[in-house]
Amino acid sequence: MSLSMYSASAPVFTRGLGNMLTWLDKAQAHAEARKFDANNYLGLRLAPDMLPLTRQIQITSDGAKACMSRLAGTEIPKWDDTEASLDELRGRIRKTLDHVQSFSAAQIDGSDARAISIPMRSGDALNFSGEAFLKHYALPNFYFHSCATYMLLRHAGVELGKADFLGR
Amino acid sequence: MSLSMYSASAPVFTRGLGNMLTWLDKAQAHAEARKFDANNYLGLRLAPDMLPLTRQIQITSDGAKACMSRLAGTEIPKWDDTEASLDELRGRIRKTLDHVQSFSAAQIDGSDARAISIPMRSGDALNFSGEAFLKHYALPNFYFHSCATYMLLRHAGVELGKADFLGR
Repeated sequence: MSLSMYSASAPVFTRGLGNMLTWLDKAQAHAEARKFDANNYLGLRLAPDMLPLTRQIQITSDGAKACMSRLAGTEIPKWDDTEASLDELRGRIRKTLDHVQSFSAAQIDGSDARAISIPMRSGDALNFSGEAFLKHYALPNFYFHSCATYMLLRHAGVELGKADFLGR
Repeated sequence: MSLSMYSASAPVFTRGLGNMLTWLDKAQAHAEARKFDANNYLGLRLAPDMLPLTRQIQITSDGAKACMSRLAGTEIPKWDDTEASLDELRGRIRKTLDHVQSFSAAQIDGSDARAISIPMRSGDALNFSGEAFLKHYALPNFYFHSCATYMLLRHAGVELGKADFLGR
């Protein structure tokens, strides 16, 4: 008995992305209660040399999108990073959910042995088996940027707790 | 072809805990370069109603420790939360690594269908299959507290980048 590559990927991204929608709803409610523009969140950074909230969400989206396509061996769709409002970021998350859910288990299962090669800006590539890619690259990368998003909102005063991170 | 419960848990915790040791080494070097007491990191919080660094590391440790014991069906060791220095936190992480590595694949594999029940303070319990426990509780919980640790140190000026989070 074991985990399938599909069950270890799609449902994890689906839950994580759904949780992010909840955080943005809570952030919006917090902004309305405090009477500030909810789009003020978009440029927040935890440190001046870290990426702002908008990029954290876009990279979370990109990671889930690319992971599913790479495991299935299909082309990764290219999405422009044009989101300029909380609503547009919600749309980006929903588009990512649709992409994740467009794959069947049959397309992903068996990808543990698939050779995955990620081109780097340097011209080199990171090479993984599908299993190592999912466990040691795609999932930690997804959690890193989603957690950065959570911590930014939490630091900004939004009423979030760990249950909002874990979701249901 | 699929992932084993062992391969989806122990190597992920091992890498994540090893990465934390690197972050603490970088934090120590940063403190020495700036000539402040490295133990000043221990009480840092991202928000006044969040847990401080020491507790984030202890809970990361507890999560990995309990996950391995629960999947194996063995008693969870009780460790007192007494760490009061960066060195003692390193010791806690190393003790956690030893615990994770004390399990064989044979003890963990097949635990996807094991019934896991986590008692809550309320008297209720969270009930999972081993698979759902690992994917939707133990791993996101581990990433949540390890990422909180990373973000705290990053926010405090320690020179960390995503490569330090992903590790090797």
